[in-house]
Amino acid sequence: MNFKIIATDENSRARVTQFETSHGIIETPVFMPVGTQATVKTLTPDELSEIGFKIILANTYHLYLQPGADVIEKAGGIHKFMNWNDSVLTDSGGFQVLSLKELRKISNEGVQFKSFIDGSTHFFSPEVVVETQEKIGSDIIIHLDICGTYQSDWKETDRELDITLQWAKRSLVAKKRKDQIMLGVVQGGFYKDLRKKAAEEISSMGFPGFTLGGLSIGEERALTEEFVDYTVPLLPGDKPRYLMGVGDPLSILEYIKMGVDMFDCVLPTRIARNKSLFTKHGVVKITKNIYKEDFTPIEDNCDCYTCRNFTKAYLHHLFKAKERLAGRLATIHNLFFLQKLILNIRQSIKSGTFKEFLRDFKNIYSQINNK
Amino acid sequence: MNFKIIATDENSRARVTQFETSHGIIETPVFMPVGTQATVKTLTPDELSEIGFKIILANTYHLYLQPGADVIEKAGGIHKFMNWNDSVLTDSGGFQVLSLKELRKISNEGVQFKSFIDGSTHFFSPEVVVETQEKIGSDIIIHLDICGTYQSDWKETDRELDITLQWAKRSLVAKKRKDQIMLGVVQGGFYKDLRKKAAEEISSMGFPGFTLGGLSIGEERALTEEFVDYTVPLLPGDKPRYLMGVGDPLSILEYIKMGVDMFDCVLPTRIARNKSLFTKHGVVKITKNIYKEDFTPIEDNCDCYTCRNFTKAYLHHLFKAKERLAGRLATIHNLFFLQKLILNIRQSIKSGTFKEFLRDFKNIYSQINNK
Repeated sequence: MNFKIIATDENSRARVTQFETSHGIIETPVFMPVGTQATVKTLTPDELSEIGFKIILANTYHLYLQPGADVIEKAGGIHKFMNWNDSVLTDSGGFQVLSLKELRKISNEGVQFKSFIDGSTHFFSPEVVVETQEKIGSDIIIHLDICGTYQSDWKETDRELDITLQWAKRSLVAKKRKDQIMLGVVQGGFYKDLRKKAAEEISSMGFPGFTLGGLSIGEERALTEEFVDYTVPLLPGDKPRYLMGVGDPLSILEYIKMGVDMFDCVLPTRIARNKSLFTKHGVVKITKNIYKEDFTPIEDNCDCYTCRNFTKAYLHHLFKAKERLAGRLATIHNLFFLQKLILNIRQSIKSGTFKEFLRDFKNIYSQINNK
Repeated sequence: MNFKIIATDENSRARVTQFETSHGIIETPVFMPVGTQATVKTLTPDELSEIGFKIILANTYHLYLQPGADVIEKAGGIHKFMNWNDSVLTDSGGFQVLSLKELRKISNEGVQFKSFIDGSTHFFSPEVVVETQEKIGSDIIIHLDICGTYQSDWKETDRELDITLQWAKRSLVAKKRKDQIMLGVVQGGFYKDLRKKAAEEISSMGFPGFTLGGLSIGEERALTEEFVDYTVPLLPGDKPRYLMGVGDPLSILEYIKMGVDMFDCVLPTRIARNKSLFTKHGVVKITKNIYKEDFTPIEDNCDCYTCRNFTKAYLHHLFKAKERLAGRLATIHNLFFLQKLILNIRQSIKSGTFKEFLRDFKNIYSQINNK
């Protein structure tokens, strides 16, 4: 995958890297918008490209159920299906399936679960999950793993880690397509010895990159940070590291500092549809009365399509009137904000000013929360 | 308003005309997409322009309640508020207010009604309605009228017509802005003598154009046609004629034949959000199973953004998955279809082939309905 380190920060593990997929070059740090069902909610692929994204995420579990991996394969893969010409990463679907609690059963073989759509029974083995992602045709795929809870005890976590490690090996054997990159999942819950064991064993299997699994799943923020900070140095430096489910600007900055390269999260798009907009001073709720007659853009110096064309008063009105254009315009702004933040972070690492950038951003970004 | 007749059909009253508003030249026949709340649902103004629209409709009643005419006035008018640089027509709000049945009270003075949003009491007089539209700043405005029901008896209809005629006069007196065109409303229900009286009196007041009021409000299609056909020749030939609430292709063709110049309707955008797409063979429901693996565009020769970029299978999936992009892509296609139809109609009138165009379109368009 031609992984290269472009620049490193001297005060932290922050770095700029790049690697290649079948659909282009990805520069990191990178934030990937979530297109769960082969669409980033409300937007066209053109709009994502215009904002500058080169990679998006889609969810294997959702696509497996609707429209089905066979349909996407017949379409010529997810890129053709949704008309997106840059890279796609799919997750394993394990997280969604395991969240079903009453509706799933785990064995060494895999996970049996029921469809949330029609109650039908399905089975995800490591092999099925690889095959499904090969049909979907994403550029980066992830093997099936078991994601515990933050209350799981050591013994349970160790047993689940052993299954995950077996599944990782089976997935490497099952993988046929040469044009896809498969990431290894580092599990081990909130036990450092198990994280160490996971990192060592997964690293030894030859995966070209890694995701930090089982973090940011409901535990205290301090605990997530402790385990990200602990786990990253256990992984080889010459491969990308991906932390799933993180999308707020301050967290992204923090984890980049710890050496994480890749992020995805529904947060920016979900809060957008819920009337909340990123600004350099923090998140603002656009339906507040103070915006009713505010005929300026969300941010004065923002170059996003929404800010170039519409005012806060108009967005306020669209949300009040429950108009669908509201969520769309807000989504564009929030994704643009994050993408610009990522570009600025890369630039600051390259120019040796990441520390100052982090400090300044934090100072300004907390202003609204302090009001 | 510089009204000009560009071409007339020799077999019918169909014609191509043009007139000028403060925001540009409108060529007719014209279909105006409905942007009730200062947004054509799901689309940006850019997308409407790309399809080729030069005029849209917004609803005075909705805008009066949310965000309020004062907000739009402070924004610099509806064009600036919603960032639409071409023409806007607003209705009088009378139709919506009168539909409230239990919540409204009519007198010679005007209509008292309760807000559907918060139950507060409001009063629409002819003067308030003119003032509201002057604040909104639309290019074409319509005076308050009383729209009866198709069951109203002669006496009631005559009484309501008299009030409408008084309101028309009061509206002309109330009108201050010189940059807006006010259309006169021809009422008279389903009584030919009253339609004649209405047409004569309204015509004598000097309005620069007319809307055929109180038609297509739930009565049998044949009755609408009879009254459109009867009323149009009663109006001066050198002014535009507008029929509200008609948006299906066959009806538009029929009424153009009768001499109607302007149309608006929520139909193309509403059925789009409800999975129904215009094709030259009729309306298709894209969620039907036959489209699940149909990797061709909605229409092979359609140049709309949706057909240029996406397949039936993808639209099928988006609707099945309840994704918001679905309604947006379907809306683009349906509006493009209607706009192209209108352009073809104009062309056929100009080239003297309207009769053949009408015949051919009808033959092909009914194919799906006959299956």
